[in-house]
Amino acid sequence: MSIDILQEKIFALRNPSVVGLDPKPEYIPADIMEKCEAEYGPTLRAAAEAYRLYGKGLIDALWDVVPAVKPQAAYYEALGPDGYAVLKDTCDYAREKGMYVILDAKRGDIGTTAEAYSRAYLGTVEVFGKTLEPFGCDSLTVNTYLGTDGIKPFYETCLARNRAIFALVKTSNPSSGELQDLAIDGKKVYERAAERLTELSVGAAGRYGYGPIGAVVGATYPEELSALRKAFPSLFFLVPGYGAQGGSADDVKGAFDKNGGGAVVNSSRGIICAYKKRGGSFDGAARDAALEMREALRKAAGL
Amino acid sequence: MSIDILQEKIFALRNPSVVGLDPKPEYIPADIMEKCEAEYGPTLRAAAEAYRLYGKGLIDALWDVVPAVKPQAAYYEALGPDGYAVLKDTCDYAREKGMYVILDAKRGDIGTTAEAYSRAYLGTVEVFGKTLEPFGCDSLTVNTYLGTDGIKPFYETCLARNRAIFALVKTSNPSSGELQDLAIDGKKVYERAAERLTELSVGAAGRYGYGPIGAVVGATYPEELSALRKAFPSLFFLVPGYGAQGGSADDVKGAFDKNGGGAVVNSSRGIICAYKKRGGSFDGAARDAALEMREALRKAAGL
Repeated sequence: MSIDILQEKIFALRNPSVVGLDPKPEYIPADIMEKCEAEYGPTLRAAAEAYRLYGKGLIDALWDVVPAVKPQAAYYEALGPDGYAVLKDTCDYAREKGMYVILDAKRGDIGTTAEAYSRAYLGTVEVFGKTLEPFGCDSLTVNTYLGTDGIKPFYETCLARNRAIFALVKTSNPSSGELQDLAIDGKKVYERAAERLTELSVGAAGRYGYGPIGAVVGATYPEELSALRKAFPSLFFLVPGYGAQGGSADDVKGAFDKNGGGAVVNSSRGIICAYKKRGGSFDGAARDAALEMREALRKAAGL
Repeated sequence: MSIDILQEKIFALRNPSVVGLDPKPEYIPADIMEKCEAEYGPTLRAAAEAYRLYGKGLIDALWDVVPAVKPQAAYYEALGPDGYAVLKDTCDYAREKGMYVILDAKRGDIGTTAEAYSRAYLGTVEVFGKTLEPFGCDSLTVNTYLGTDGIKPFYETCLARNRAIFALVKTSNPSSGELQDLAIDGKKVYERAAERLTELSVGAAGRYGYGPIGAVVGATYPEELSALRKAFPSLFFLVPGYGAQGGSADDVKGAFDKNGGGAVVNSSRGIICAYKKRGGSFDGAARDAALEMREALRKAAGL
């Protein structure tokens, strides 16, 4: 079970954190940018190659202390096809180094199209009599708005290929409540979303009690996070919003179960841009920041 | 105003339809697949090149009768980076031929990440002192679940760059009601979504009364479609679900305003796979099917 693999990596490293790879040109050290511009000119290709080196450097600095990495597709897609190709290579490299890869792409569509997305990122494609793997991540974030038939194809691919998804439930942004917090008969939209996800994956829980469908719940809503943990014991949580977005170790305490399992907390800028505040090399500073986050989360989770 | 451009193309061709490019290996004529396999081997690259030829053939057959094309990102992403590169080239080719390109990628995320997606598909990126365009579509479908701050960056890019978005309101799939139809004080989640979109784009309407934020409303829910048309006169509708999904010309009548404007109706398989039912060449059959759809929609819209 894919979510068991993530949980075991977390327990082995005593570190329930994931580092978000959210590259932007202004985050990349100048020497990397200059080297790539010298080789490829002032192009999107050059920027993509800079993202590749930056991502590789971060993974090399983090793989033995952080169990998982969460590349954010949007930032790579913002460099067009060259960026997208580097996104795939970065996922592959992280998996080679033994990291669990959560591709944060928030895909979602109606049945047949959701099936195409699930093949793209978690599955395979049959073509020319061959079975080919387009991307190959461990897990993917998906959007819940379209309902069960938009989630089901992902779920089936998870079962068939030992993968996982994290569906948006209560997101970390300021206006997430506009639709997600609307209450019907005392139950909110995001609670109903969590209920549907639980129903869909009933009976599929692994060794630690969690199934292949997890939930995205923001660190910026600590009360909701604790309440959801109690109400939905089979949903593993991906918790964004720690660090730069304002969530603290105290805010995420409620995300964990009594064994310190059940959740992985993401920080992006707080780790990948740490060198801008701390000085030193980008990779060394990222490692130092990741070690601090690990200590804070060990206490929060009781690991 | 981008949505004015779409509306004018629709009026000029008297055709409120858009053809969805949803390629799958089994849709492509055997001779194209064989040619590409011979050149590139049994690879994702070969399949992507087949999608390129298929898409180009469809665009060449349709550009003078159909105002818009809607490539579905999922199917191209299912071929990995090679497919993604062909998706961009296909968008570029359709624009070169004068078609309005709606990229159906249903992107959506929190503020900063939504900004990256808006740059990727509708905007530009600043890098190496240059302003580069990663993709360059006329419009993009976006997911509403995260709330206003997930939509705002797209909206701002639309204003700055003369682009449009279509936000998911009431989707065409069978379980769309699970979250979207939940009613709070007599008002459904999807109606509140439409309200927010209207509020966000107030004052930005163009020549025909429509703003740069449109709404996706499925042909499979004709009553909701008519009611939304009346309630939200500034939202241009992208209406999927016609044809293969079950929606008829009669079902989409209510999507149009009194001038026959305000909506564009999508068919994908019904056009791009028409040759499988009709025989003949894939491109000739697509054109014939598109002409039939045009006649049906002219009547429905009163154009």
